[in-house]
Amino acid sequence: MNDVLIIGTVALDTIETPFGKVENALGGSATYASFAASFFSKPAILSVVGKDFPNEYIDSMKKRNIDLEGLKVAGKTFHWEGFYEYDMNEAKTRKTELNSLEHFKVDVPQEYKNIKYVFLANIDPEHQLEALNQMNKPILVVLDTMNFWISHKKNSVLEAIKKVDVLLLNDGEARQLFNTANLVKAANEALSLGPKAVIIKKGEHGALLFTKNKHFSAPGYPLENIRDPTGCGDSFGGAFIGYLAKTKDLDEKNLRKSIVYGSVVASHNAEDFGLNRLKQLTMDDIEKRYKEFQDMREF
Amino acid sequence: MNDVLIIGTVALDTIETPFGKVENALGGSATYASFAASFFSKPAILSVVGKDFPNEYIDSMKKRNIDLEGLKVAGKTFHWEGFYEYDMNEAKTRKTELNSLEHFKVDVPQEYKNIKYVFLANIDPEHQLEALNQMNKPILVVLDTMNFWISHKKNSVLEAIKKVDVLLLNDGEARQLFNTANLVKAANEALSLGPKAVIIKKGEHGALLFTKNKHFSAPGYPLENIRDPTGCGDSFGGAFIGYLAKTKDLDEKNLRKSIVYGSVVASHNAEDFGLNRLKQLTMDDIEKRYKEFQDMREF
Repeated sequence: MNDVLIIGTVALDTIETPFGKVENALGGSATYASFAASFFSKPAILSVVGKDFPNEYIDSMKKRNIDLEGLKVAGKTFHWEGFYEYDMNEAKTRKTELNSLEHFKVDVPQEYKNIKYVFLANIDPEHQLEALNQMNKPILVVLDTMNFWISHKKNSVLEAIKKVDVLLLNDGEARQLFNTANLVKAANEALSLGPKAVIIKKGEHGALLFTKNKHFSAPGYPLENIRDPTGCGDSFGGAFIGYLAKTKDLDEKNLRKSIVYGSVVASHNAEDFGLNRLKQLTMDDIEKRYKEFQDMREF
Repeated sequence: MNDVLIIGTVALDTIETPFGKVENALGGSATYASFAASFFSKPAILSVVGKDFPNEYIDSMKKRNIDLEGLKVAGKTFHWEGFYEYDMNEAKTRKTELNSLEHFKVDVPQEYKNIKYVFLANIDPEHQLEALNQMNKPILVVLDTMNFWISHKKNSVLEAIKKVDVLLLNDGEARQLFNTANLVKAANEALSLGPKAVIIKKGEHGALLFTKNKHFSAPGYPLENIRDPTGCGDSFGGAFIGYLAKTKDLDEKNLRKSIVYGSVVASHNAEDFGLNRLKQLTMDDIEKRYKEFQDMREF
């Protein structure tokens, strides 16, 4: 039974980092998020690809038990081309071809409407709002976004924030959206809009959770070799909501655990290009690194 | 009985941040470090000031029980003028007048030579090496430095690193010194030079401790109002070595606790200009925030 619905992009990515290059690799926010969620739960995705989308990519998603009933096929697949420089912290975009995403009309399949855990992964905020609108009383709605939407559709992003339980942002986006260098101020502003929790993802520096009067700081994992950080934020979000859907416990304490599971999966994701690492990842790998996270914050 | 020796600068600082300005305020690496250390131990400092150095600054150092036997008086006091912009992460220097520091000749007073905990705080690495050379078998030597010395006297910095037990660096300095964007690689390179522990200070993102095969990640404290970050790194180092000197325990576990005490004092330091906050700080404030650090790490 599907227990997490993820709306987001499914893409063909061309990525260059100081460690290599891949062309037309399987990518997109819904893809990374659903791979990550699939270790804990049974995700269904809502997205669109083109007729050019390779069958082997469909197969690799099915292998992870991702429900593709909500994956439409029309036109040409969304294509993103980007690169990372020396510091690997920020993706630089070379080209964005929206293609079939441009005319994507959100239409939640009947059998998805009662899914209780909803991840509005990175995609046009109007698509996120429309998907949410079609759902029947979800228990938990998590929202992610990116600088592009904050720049171009800030009002829709803010409208979406008001309707969700958990907001995910990276540090740069939090600063941009709330026009402050101070992440505590940004998080408090975000909380005042409605979400019960705000999570600020800081890449190698870990992640922060802000709830009313509480603060949690998850460590970053000390990776000696980061080959490709693409999809780390999406993987984080997918594993986060996947673990919550599995445990059905929304207490502060379990939110913290979910964030660490998100960090564990995201840190693995950066170890190889595209989805190569998540395709090989096992629950043993995840639990082993979770224990390392416990050890490295002990004092 | 003095139990921590700190060599570093004592300065008159002119600082501007988005929240205000101070002129000729008490500053310098040895000053911040000794104030911070004084909450846990009895620090002695080795430095120089000019004849223009205000008596009230001497008094405020004496109030914290800082031994000033090793503070020479000659010429004019070292003066630093700097400012911080929007993001408050990086001090920008407007003016550096070395003055009496330029002719500073290190001469460790006889009664300091047996002090067992030595902090080579930020100052010319040749001064650090000379001070260390005059000491009798210290138990623990901690080294701090800054980008200026890495740029201008890299060989002396590397020579000093080879002779110490613990190296403190901020993230930018670690990347600069070892020519890599990856902090894990930088830390491993530093460890291979000799230190048993490398601590990378990351400002608002906390601090990392690397020892052989072990890793600790200390959280940053979520400060909503940072008024002046000047001296945070020095305060961190001072509290770190002060707590170690007090507890006389160099186990990995106690190193971790010392780092959290360092973070606690440094986070307080940023709350007001110059040494204003540390002048008012109490052990109760410190223990209270230490508990907050514990809580925000729990999962």
